[in-house]
Order: sequence, then C-alpha cells, then structure tokens
Amino acid sequence: MDGAGVLAEVSHGSGAVPDDDLARLVASLLVVRCSGHLADGQRRYPRWELDNATLQRLLGAGVGGVILLGGSAAELRLRTRQLQAWAATDLLLCADVEEGVGQRFEGASWLVPPLALGRLHGDDPAAAEELAERYGRCSGREARALGLNWVLGPVCDVNNNPANPVINVRAWGETAATAGALAAAFVRGAQAEGVLCCAKHFPGHGDTASDSHLELPLLPHNRERLEAVELPPFRAAIAAGVASVMTAHLLLPELDRERPATLSAAVLTGLLRSDLGFGGLVVTDALVMEAITAHHGAGEAAVLALEAGADLVLMPADADAAMAGIRVAVEQGRLGRERLEASTERRRLALASLRELGDPLAAAGSASEDGSEPLGPLSNGPISADRQLALELVQRSLRHQGGQVSLPAGSSGAAAAITLIRVDTALGSTFLQPTAPALTRASAAGFRPVVLDGCSPSPWRIGLEEAADRSADGPDGDATGRSTGTPIAADGPLDLARLGEGPVLLQLFVRGNPFRGSAAGREPWEAVIRQLQAAGRLAGLAVYGSPYLWESLQPLIAEGIPAAWSPGQMPLAQAELLAVLGLGTPAGRGDGFTD
Amino acid sequence: MDGAGVLAEVSHGSGAVPDDDLARLVASLLVVRCSGHLADGQRRYPRWELDNATLQRLLGAGVGGVILLGGSAAELRLRTRQLQAWAATDLLLCADVEEGVGQRFEGASWLVPPLALGRLHGDDPAAAEELAERYGRCSGREARALGLNWVLGPVCDVNNNPANPVINVRAWGETAATAGALAAAFVRGAQAEGVLCCAKHFPGHGDTASDSHLELPLLPHNRERLEAVELPPFRAAIAAGVASVMTAHLLLPELDRERPATLSAAVLTGLLRSDLGFGGLVVTDALVMEAITAHHGAGEAAVLALEAGADLVLMPADADAAMAGIRVAVEQGRLGRERLEASTERRRLALASLRELGDPLAAAGSASEDGSEPLGPLSNGPISADRQLALELVQRSLRHQGGQVSLPAGSSGAAAAITLIRVDTALGSTFLQPTAPALTRASAAGFRPVVLDGCSPSPWRIGLEEAADRSADGPDGDATGRSTGTPIAADGPLDLARLGEGPVLLQLFVRGNPFRGSAAGREPWEAVIRQLQAAGRLAGLAVYGSPYLWESLQPLIAEGIPAAWSPGQMPLAQAELLAVLGLGTPAGRGDGFTD
Repeated sequence: MDGAGVLAEVSHGSGAVPDDDLARLVASLLVVRCSGHLADGQRRYPRWELDNATLQRLLGAGVGGVILLGGSAAELRLRTRQLQAWAATDLLLCADVEEGVGQRFEGASWLVPPLALGRLHGDDPAAAEELAERYGRCSGREARALGLNWVLGPVCDVNNNPANPVINVRAWGETAATAGALAAAFVRGAQAEGVLCCAKHFPGHGDTASDSHLELPLLPHNRERLEAVELPPFRAAIAAGVASVMTAHLLLPELDRERPATLSAAVLTGLLRSDLGFGGLVVTDALVMEAITAHHGAGEAAVLALEAGADLVLMPADADAAMAGIRVAVEQGRLGRERLEASTERRRLALASLRELGDPLAAAGSASEDGSEPLGPLSNGPISADRQLALELVQRSLRHQGGQVSLPAGSSGAAAAITLIRVDTALGSTFLQPTAPALTRASAAGFRPVVLDGCSPSPWRIGLEEAADRSADGPDGDATGRSTGTPIAADGPLDLARLGEGPVLLQLFVRGNPFRGSAAGREPWEAVIRQLQAAGRLAGLAVYGSPYLWESLQPLIAEGIPAAWSPGQMPLAQAELLAVLGLGTPAGRGDGFTD
Repeated sequence: MDGAGVLAEVSHGSGAVPDDDLARLVASLLVVRCSGHLADGQRRYPRWELDNATLQRLLGAGVGGVILLGGSAAELRLRTRQLQAWAATDLLLCADVEEGVGQRFEGASWLVPPLALGRLHGDDPAAAEELAERYGRCSGREARALGLNWVLGPVCDVNNNPANPVINVRAWGETAATAGALAAAFVRGAQAEGVLCCAKHFPGHGDTASDSHLELPLLPHNRERLEAVELPPFRAAIAAGVASVMTAHLLLPELDRERPATLSAAVLTGLLRSDLGFGGLVVTDALVMEAITAHHGAGEAAVLALEAGADLVLMPADADAAMAGIRVAVEQGRLGRERLEASTERRRLALASLRELGDPLAAAGSASEDGSEPLGPLSNGPISADRQLALELVQRSLRHQGGQVSLPAGSSGAAAAITLIRVDTALGSTFLQPTAPALTRASAAGFRPVVLDGCSPSPWRIGLEEAADRSADGPDGDATGRSTGTPIAADGPLDLARLGEGPVLLQLFVRGNPFRGSAAGREPWEAVIRQLQAAGRLAGLAVYGSPYLWESLQPLIAEGIPAAWSPGQMPLAQAELLAVLGLGTPAGRGDGFTD
C-alpha cells in the first residue's frame, strides 16, 4: 500500500482539506529508528536505519520519537542534537541501553548484565537492590548527558527458562520477587536522573524458548499463572513510577486467542490499563519484527496496536504507510481521534515530567564553551563513581575455583600453548577488539589465541551435529567427568591436532543473543572439557556471559584446574576474570584493562 | 634517565633560575601521540597513546603538536577542538591520512591506495595526475574540516621492491618519475585546501624488505643511485611547495656510516637542506620505533635528531625525557639555542601560511549553531564530489577477467558453496564489518563465508611451512598452472574437506602492512589456485590490495573463471569488484555499498 496514495485518496474522498493537525497528531506517536552515527555511510544496519534525508523529512513532519543504535558516546551526543534540530516537536530519544549506555555507545559505562544482580539478590537482597539503583542512576545520568531522555529498560521478564534465546541474562531475575525488586530499584535510580524508563516486555517474555525477532512465540499460561510469575515485576515497576511499558510480541491464547499482546486490547487495555492501573505510556516493541510483519502490513499493524491501547508505535516497518493507515482509520471512524489525543497527552506529560529536572539537551550542551570538555562530565569516559560501580559489579558477580593458571614453560619464546576463544561473531565485536584482555593477557602469558566464531574453519574433529549428538548421550567418564581416559573423551569433538600444541585455556563468550541464539545450546562444550582433561591439556576455563553454560561445565572441572565465570563479556570483565586466574593484575580502576 | 631529575640537576647545577622560555621553546618542537577518541578507556593502543591527564599537562606546558589515530570523523572533530583548548600554543594537528581521511577516521572519504594511481600513470599520465590532485584536495579539505592542519603524506618512496613490507601500495609509484609527478600533484591539491603536507620518508624507503617499525633497515645505495631513484620524488614534492619532509629510520652507509637518516647531519642538513635546498619543516619519523629505541634513549634520540637538522621530534619514546634531554643539551652548549629558534621560526611560518586561508578550527566550528550540521559539510559523510572521486578511483583501478561468477544451484536454501576470505586481522577490522559486501553479497548469492586470519584454526592440510616450501618449488602443472590434475594440485595445501562443500569464491585481502607484513609472502596461494582448479571448485577470485599478489595469481587462472583485483580493500571497493563479478549491483554512489 502506497502511503502517499492513500492520503491523497482519503483527502479527496472526504472532500475535506488536508487535516494538518491530524497528521501531526499521528506523526507524534511514531518512534522511528536511526543509527547513532552521523553519516548514512556509517550505518551498520541500513535496512532498518533510516537515511538522513528520510529522517529529516519525517521529523520535520512531526514524527515524535527516535530509537538510536550504534556509534560512540561522542557521536551520539552530536546525533541527538542534530535530530532535535530537525524535529518539529520535542523528541522522545531512546535506546536499548539495558546494560549501561556503554553497551551500545562506546565511551560510556558498560555494566554486567542485570541477571548478575539477580544472582546476588538471593544471597544479599539489600546489597543487590542498592546496586540496581546505582545501575539505574548510572544509566540515567549518562543517557541524559548524551541527549537521550528515554531508557528502554528495565527488562521485567522473569527468566525462568534457561533456554530463552532472547531474554536470558538481560532479565533482573529468575523469580518474580527478585526481578520485581531489582527492576523497581533500577527505575527509581534512572528516573531520578531525569530520564523516562520502560518496563518490558509486557506481560512477560521470560518463559519462551523462541525468539520473537524471528517468529511469534506462544505463552500457554492462564491468568493465575501470570499473576504468580509474569506480572509481579511489572506491578513492582509501576509502583516505582515507571513512565512507560513496552509490549511483547507473544501470543497468550488464554487472554486473547487471536492477537499477540502487542495488538491485543485484552492485554493492553484490559490487563495493563484496567487491572494493573497503569496510566503512563504504552509503547509497542518494534513492529518491524517478524512476529508482526509476517501477519500484518505496516499500516494495519500500527492501527491494531493503537486500537488495542498502545500510545506509541515503535519502528513500524514503513513509517509513511503506518501514518497513512492510522489517518485512514481515524477518518473512517475506526479509530477515535480522542483515543490518539489521550496518547499525545500522556506523551506530553511524560516529557513535561522531565522538564522539571531541566532540559537535558541544554544541560549537556552547556558543558564547555571552549571545546575542552565536549561531552561535559563524560569527556574522559564514565565519571569515577560509575567506573567504580562497573568494577564493583564485575567483582561481586565473579565466580572462581581452582586457583591460578600455571604458565607453560618457555612461554616467553614461541607460544607452546593456545587459548581457544569462542565468540558468536568476531567481526565487528565491540568486546573482542585486538586489545581485549582475553587476547592480550593470554598472549602475554604464552597462550596463542585461536578464535572460533560462525565464520571460522571448523575446529571439530567430526561433523558438529554428530559431535552434539554424541555429547547429548552423556559423559563416558565418571560422574564428575574427571579424566577417565575413555576413548570418547580422548577422542572428543575438538580436532586438537589442528588447533595447536600444549595446554589450552578455554575462553567461552556465550549468552542468549537476539537473532542469533546462543552458541552454548548447539556445541558440545561439556565433551570438550572431558576431552581436554583426558588429554591433560585443560589449562583453565573462563566463561563470559551465560550462568547456565557455567553451571553445566563447572561440575566437570577437575579439582585444582582454574575456572571462572563472569556474567559480563566486556573488557573490564575479561581483565578481572583473567586476573583471578593469575593472568595480569586486577583492573583497580575502570580503564585499567587497557594494558 | 629520569626527566624531572635531570631538570632539577641542571637548574641547580647552573645556578640559573628555570628558563621558562627555553622550556616552551623545546616543548613546541615535540609532536606527541594520542587517540582520536575522547576518553582514555577508548584508546586502542594505550601503550603509545597518551592518557588525557598527561596530554593536558604536556599541551599546557607548550608541546606544539599532536598526531592522532583512531576514532570517527565526529570524534576527531571534537578531539581536535579539545586539544587546542588544552594547548598553550597553536597546535600542529596531524594524522597518517595517506589514503583519505576515512582511512583512519570513519565517516570521511576512504580512497584507494596511491599505487592504484601509480599504475594508471603508465597508461594515462594526465588523468592520473589530475586524479592525484583531486585526491589531495579531498584529503586536505576533509582534514581541515575535522580540525587537522597537517596531512602526513604524500609518501615519496619509490616502491621498486615488491617485497617491501612497510611501503608497498602506500607509494605513488614504482618509478621515480611516476612517484614524483603524482606526489607533487597530491601536494598541490591538499595544500590548496589549507593544510600542510609532508613528503616522506626521506631519503627514500621504497627499496627495503624489512620494516623499520621492528628493526633498522639498511640501504646500500650510493649518492648516484639515490639521485636516480630515491631523490627525484622528494625534489618534485619540494618543487610543488611541500611544507614538510619526514625522515626515514634507514641506515645509508654510503652517506653516513654510523647514524640512520633520522639522526644524520649528512642526510638532513647536508643532503636535504643544502643539496635539495629544502627550507620547510623537517620532522622525524616516530622516535618510538624500534629502529631508534634499540640504540638510543628518548632524550638522546631527540637531541641527535635536532643536532642532525630536524625541526620537529615525532612521538619520542618519553616526552618528558626528550624535553629534559634537549634542555640539558642546550644548557651544556651541545645544541645551539639559535638552532632551536630557527626550527620554531619555520614552525611559525608554516602555521602562518595556513592562517592566510582562515582558521580551520573556526571555519569548521561555525558550521551549525543549532546542531543540525555538527560536522559542517561532512555531517552526512563525504560531500558529493568526494564520493564521486572515491568511486571513480575504484572503478578506474579495477581489473577483471573471465566474466561473472555463476551461482551454485539451489543457493537460496542451505548454502552449498563457500567464500574463503583471507584477511590479516578480522578482529577490529574496519573494512570487514559484518555488513561488508565481501560477506553480505557473497552470502546473498549462496556462498557461506569462511574467514581466515591469524587467529583462525588452520585451514591447511599440512603444516603451513611445509605447504609454503612445496609452493616455492614451483607448480607441478603446466607453465600457466591451468588445471593439470597432478597429484600435488589435487592434494594441495588447503584442507578443503574441513572448509565446506561446493564451489569456492576466494577473496584475499592482502597488502603490505607495517608491523604485520603481508600474508601474501608466507602463504601458498598459487598452490591453492591450482588445487581449487584441479578439483573443479574455483568459482572466482577477488584480490583486494596487493598488485603483486594479483600478478602472481592472475596468470594461473583458467580461461573463463572470473577473477578481479582492486587496490582498495574498503567496502566501496568490495562492492564494485563483486558487482563486476556478478554479485550485486555497482555502487553508483559513494554509500551504495550498504545493501
């Protein structure tokens, strides 16, 4: 459907003059996506990120929100200013900075994933909640300093399904109570710094084993179960004053047989607005996701979402078609204009609540007239308190056993040992730059890096599927998996002869990743541990990310063999983890890993 | 030697009050290195890049120049402003942007290496010279817009040694006449845009097979030979008005038995100043390079360079020690103060020549008050003329034979073909991001990427050294190397069974790289071509970078098999090259490769 054509047809058909007010009203409810880089040519996802000409046109026409991804903190600061200058209205400027602003924009704080605090909460709830509030403060302060006013977090999903490919360590907890307490603490911290937060993904995306980026997951739970597990964290976030809630692309047949939550009046208006009493902004998850686009066109999806009770439409597959579709729906009486006006009023109130804390753009902009502090307090990276927080989070969530890695003899000369590094995507990795501690510290200790990702030549001795099957049959060794020298173990899945001689330091960067799932579920790392131990070649194990992978491998590690897990994958986590394994010194300060 | 200690000793020893004028004079002759990123934690080479506290202290003390590396165009723009705000004097702000500013700072123009034009010069000298001048204009204009005022180019070395690991495609020519004509054209273009240029590496680094980053190369040539080959491009650049000349860390025993060119009065004062009559700025190459530091301390190296005739000292191993060493040398009468004053006068004149064209910082800064154009004309990447230039350079230098790659049958489903991509370093690669055409276009056509770099599991069937030896023995096939099906070819070096089934599109990113040399020299790609052809599996060949690798492989390619070479490795070159091979459409415009 051609957007411009529809508009023209409607205008002529109704005989009315073009309704500019309606057009602006409709536009203000859209949130479109762009890169945090300034230039079109720098976009990493040009299929999804608008080019500057389109962006300028849409913002000039009153589009009211932008979600940003990619670029450094410095670029983001310039970019948010540029977008506001192009816009006809005050913008909502948001990003998926769930794990600190530095997760998406280099130069700001990159914190361990929330589930790290979820784990801590079991042992020391007060400490975990205090850290979650500081986590929120850090994220809110940095977002605001860089021109963002809307943090798309906290994730309120309860990750009670370890196989969840899309939530996983992004969740604040594996129980409703933990997730709720920590999500609420995050909201208090972040919103106190002058940004809006967003509880997601309503009514709860934790118990799915499929990825809504790729298909529409189904949640079979009834209302009673939702009340027990899924809803409490959202109630907690709402009680903490969260400004917005994001909908999930999930089918919950017990609530609505036909429509996914994002498009369901029963879920958004019935459950969220009426039952939970949420009066803030309801925003859809990205409408461009396959779970929606496979079933509805861009215009119809937007109309259905607004009809269901959403206030804001995130990343429609086609912004012009979405706006045209909504206008047609209003002009045909399908969608009440007062319904849209109520949404813009909520939008206005949300922005007004921020203004009480001063204009973030102005605050950040006034930092330095002479240019010496172009990003204000962030000009030399995170402020000291946030560096300390990042380090404390890493240190408190680190797990370690078995002492330190003993260096191979003669490691100063030609490396006679390897470190096998598994990462989902080496190309373009932000945490595995050539200066990453996982590479440099291991190299310095004599372990030559061998990096495995989806584009590497196979490291497996046999076909991977066969290896995975074999692994699924269970260990051939004893219950602890300690070296039994059985044929399977010695004959294990890795083709060690091809990878190199000597001891092997295994470093696994594995976590649930939207779109890509997790390497953990598909590869026989348990069998690899057995194989390396049987061959007497396991120098140590480092797991960065998934607690579930760690929990599956840790019991297999023979006594005395050094092993550690950090929920974080960023360089700071690598530096701290390797330090406890005896490779290099602890960071001590936030940037100490750059050695 | 402790810098502060020396100063204290001298001050006390001479009984004089501290000579602030001398300190400033000395400091102004130093060029220190920092990252183009704003924050310490973003530095890629923290060992060589000063932290902000040190930088601020040194610039406040009068250090007069900074060389920048890393960061995007947007970050660089903020960074140059920040450095000038910290500085006590007008700064020389430079970068090794030999192949366009985008080579080092993402978001600006990234052009094919100069040798591409050197090759064109043989066929069409007028066109090549005109393109070289536009190349200079583009580089100068963008450098200035981002706050740089000194472009560390053109390379004036004559690359008459294909095995040169450090110059190679960075040179403008393989003969003195070509290198000189094009280097001079570059200087005219760039300096007309209001930046200083730098002819390097005097007296000529083209005929070395070792890398001065790692050791001190020796050039056995006498004056007569230098006059015939090495010196003419420098004479041409000087005649074109080049503002500065950079010295080489080379030992030329026929000119100076003891000291490398950088530290040799015979070379700098005798040859460059007197014989060639150069009156501009003489700057050392980085004194932190192994060729210097292996023999001299930081203070002594700086003193020797100034004694020999250098005006500016680039990247001393320790800036404080260098300044202290120079002050001691002056106070002890070893180095005349008037010698340093002559250097600062040349520095002053060079900066004054730029001011005639207006203050670059002010020019770029005034671009946009409201923030809508934060980088002025560069806000959406290169201007149209420069995009056109980048494309034209790629198109004119592309070589192609054998038609288009035929897609494997059923390529829409599971890929039954692979593209084998060889790159020096995949991690952190700026041209092989996940959206690079070499990956996306090949994938879209059914070729699954397999990426080989220095950290990959070995793709070789036998030990690499053995494979290389075998390759060096020469082909076992006929003279053209066309598929003869001999055992060696079928049994070739790649372990194809591990890499995947089906046709292989070979993509080789190979060029001389400082510090790392070139993969071409160490791997048996000729034997791989024979092997793939013997197995009937060579779908096509793409060489990005080295003309020498292309020239060694091209004669082996059987008739009808598609093969192409581009001197460029950046995404634009990938897109154009793959388009001529039938994979995707030509870019058409500068950012058209983002598909």
